[in-house]
Amino acid sequence: MTRIIGPDDMEAISLGGAFLGTGGGGDPYIGKLMARAMMTDHGPVKVVAAADVPDDALCVPVCMMGAPTVMVEKLPNGDEALAALRALEAYLGRKADFLICIEAGGLNSTIPFAVAAATGLPLIDGDGMGRAFPELQMVSLTLHDISATPMVIADDKGNTGVLNAVSNQWTERLARAATVEMGGAALVALYPMSGRQMKQGLLHGTLSLIHDIGKTILTERAANRHPAAALIKMRGGFDLCTARVLDIERKTTGGFARGRARLRGMDEDSGRAFILSFQNEFLCLEDDEGQPLALTPDLICALDADGGLPVTTENLRFGLAIRLIGLPADPQWRSDGGLALAGPAYFGYPHPFQPLEDLVRARRPKDKPRNMEVTK
Amino acid sequence: MTRIIGPDDMEAISLGGAFLGTGGGGDPYIGKLMARAMMTDHGPVKVVAAADVPDDALCVPVCMMGAPTVMVEKLPNGDEALAALRALEAYLGRKADFLICIEAGGLNSTIPFAVAAATGLPLIDGDGMGRAFPELQMVSLTLHDISATPMVIADDKGNTGVLNAVSNQWTERLARAATVEMGGAALVALYPMSGRQMKQGLLHGTLSLIHDIGKTILTERAANRHPAAALIKMRGGFDLCTARVLDIERKTTGGFARGRARLRGMDEDSGRAFILSFQNEFLCLEDDEGQPLALTPDLICALDADGGLPVTTENLRFGLAIRLIGLPADPQWRSDGGLALAGPAYFGYPHPFQPLEDLVRARRPKDKPRNMEVTK
Repeated sequence: MTRIIGPDDMEAISLGGAFLGTGGGGDPYIGKLMARAMMTDHGPVKVVAAADVPDDALCVPVCMMGAPTVMVEKLPNGDEALAALRALEAYLGRKADFLICIEAGGLNSTIPFAVAAATGLPLIDGDGMGRAFPELQMVSLTLHDISATPMVIADDKGNTGVLNAVSNQWTERLARAATVEMGGAALVALYPMSGRQMKQGLLHGTLSLIHDIGKTILTERAANRHPAAALIKMRGGFDLCTARVLDIERKTTGGFARGRARLRGMDEDSGRAFILSFQNEFLCLEDDEGQPLALTPDLICALDADGGLPVTTENLRFGLAIRLIGLPADPQWRSDGGLALAGPAYFGYPHPFQPLEDLVRARRPKDKPRNMEVTK
Repeated sequence: MTRIIGPDDMEAISLGGAFLGTGGGGDPYIGKLMARAMMTDHGPVKVVAAADVPDDALCVPVCMMGAPTVMVEKLPNGDEALAALRALEAYLGRKADFLICIEAGGLNSTIPFAVAAATGLPLIDGDGMGRAFPELQMVSLTLHDISATPMVIADDKGNTGVLNAVSNQWTERLARAATVEMGGAALVALYPMSGRQMKQGLLHGTLSLIHDIGKTILTERAANRHPAAALIKMRGGFDLCTARVLDIERKTTGGFARGRARLRGMDEDSGRAFILSFQNEFLCLEDDEGQPLALTPDLICALDADGGLPVTTENLRFGLAIRLIGLPADPQWRSDGGLALAGPAYFGYPHPFQPLEDLVRARRPKDKPRNMEVTK
């Protein structure tokens, strides 16, 4: 099952990526422009099923690392990502055969398309998260003992570094320090892996899913419908709340955009209040009594309550009305290993992980969310 | 002119290095032990004149990077330096032919002896500073357009990084960030250069000088004489002051030990006060009216006022009596390029550079230092 993705598909890809990116992974508008420009010059990109990749192929994820708040002002020009890939190939003494998206996101699921177009390499239909996460060890590859290194990090000035670290956590620490010094955002090529490792470690089908989600958003908008209902139905999700941003605390420190927003409920959620916390991605939604409504690693996806477009953390602002949708994470993330990597405790939230479905079921009747079973 | 340096020479080398290290470059006691242990296992080290090195030889400096305050508690075990060298060789696809000391210092002029003993490689009689400086671009090699990269950085845990940077200043920024993340100290192999580049860019004869200074310290101490007078005579230096540490501010931040000490004059300097500022190295000596008495890049070398042993910044402590000696820097450091790299303005001191000789000549009669011409 090979999909051919051309410039006209990039709007859907960037929107679908931004939706699954749970606020992180960068701005879909920038991502779309980058990939489109590269495809217009070099032609479309082939997306191949993981199963069709030979076991001995060299598969390399390329992505941006850093705070999305920085990426808005410090755009990658596309050459850094290619420089990172080329430097990794030089270090390994071998050319890459396939490229990979490490995560969903407006930028991080479009940059690999730009690099794929520039190099003529196919992209694999999968990713390392099924969503976006802020730290580089937070990928299914870590759960399958695949090393993040050798890893290359490259900046806009022409600096590059090759890391070899003793663990993926150490890779994160060292690469994050370099990212901060490089100006808060950098391009990386990492987790070089064989086709065999890829088939075991990657979450399959993510690019098709991103594409389909993006097309759904576009179709619903074209029909003047808010896409929330269709997306919830498509992904077995839950409508968490519709609310307006009252107040937002945001700091770009240590290479991350961290903060929390206070939200005031609207429409059916009128009279209620929420706290939405993030570190690049939306990670924890609580009600005004501190009770969790959705917790990482489950997905908290934000859409503009009016227009229905995905909202990223860096675009969250006072007065914006958003509609939050919860999606269950891939089962790997709910395992002990997955929760140790990216559960609430890792980020310092005081709640033990509870699956979204349970949290929704436990909500007081007046708080009952409008999930599809209820509204139908 | 080849010198053979064995375990019994390391006491002199470490003391001479610590003296020229102007407070930086690490503790001579630790340095001595490391190199001795390695020489006892592997035999002595050959130190060759720069002129005897073939133009096409690969010459590589190895050293420790970080805050000396950290190095006191987080000792290198010797393997990290060798790991850094081996990783650089692997990256370059070529074995090193000669090793280099990048700077004078208790540790940084002994670590290369340890690595030379372990590898059987000869050391070149020279260094990149003729003293110690806190930042890695502050070497004569930068003045001769020799790149610090490819550079390898290695830590005690087994992490390594290879950097390629667009300037030696960028190398410093990125390697410093990695050093901080690695725990405040790391081992590096950098400035890989040809024999031809080395002959142009290196300051020649530094290891012989360090050895001779160390022997002078030992000889004078053995004769129950304070070594200051002999060292001043040997190097054309000046006695700056003898004083007791009254107060010391010290912060280990950003990978450096920064601070300043207030000193109260003793003996002939009784009734006077001084401020001694440092960033790993002693960089600025002022009197109590803020007038400069010695300024970087000229050398401010500290000896214990009683025992005559070199005092490093991390060993500076309340109540310690020290004798400060000023030595003129190598003429390259006093050039416009040298002052831009390591002059007072770079470090934020408010004084324009003035040569030590001029500052000494300008001192008020009651402040006249006891330089050799005066006391003879």
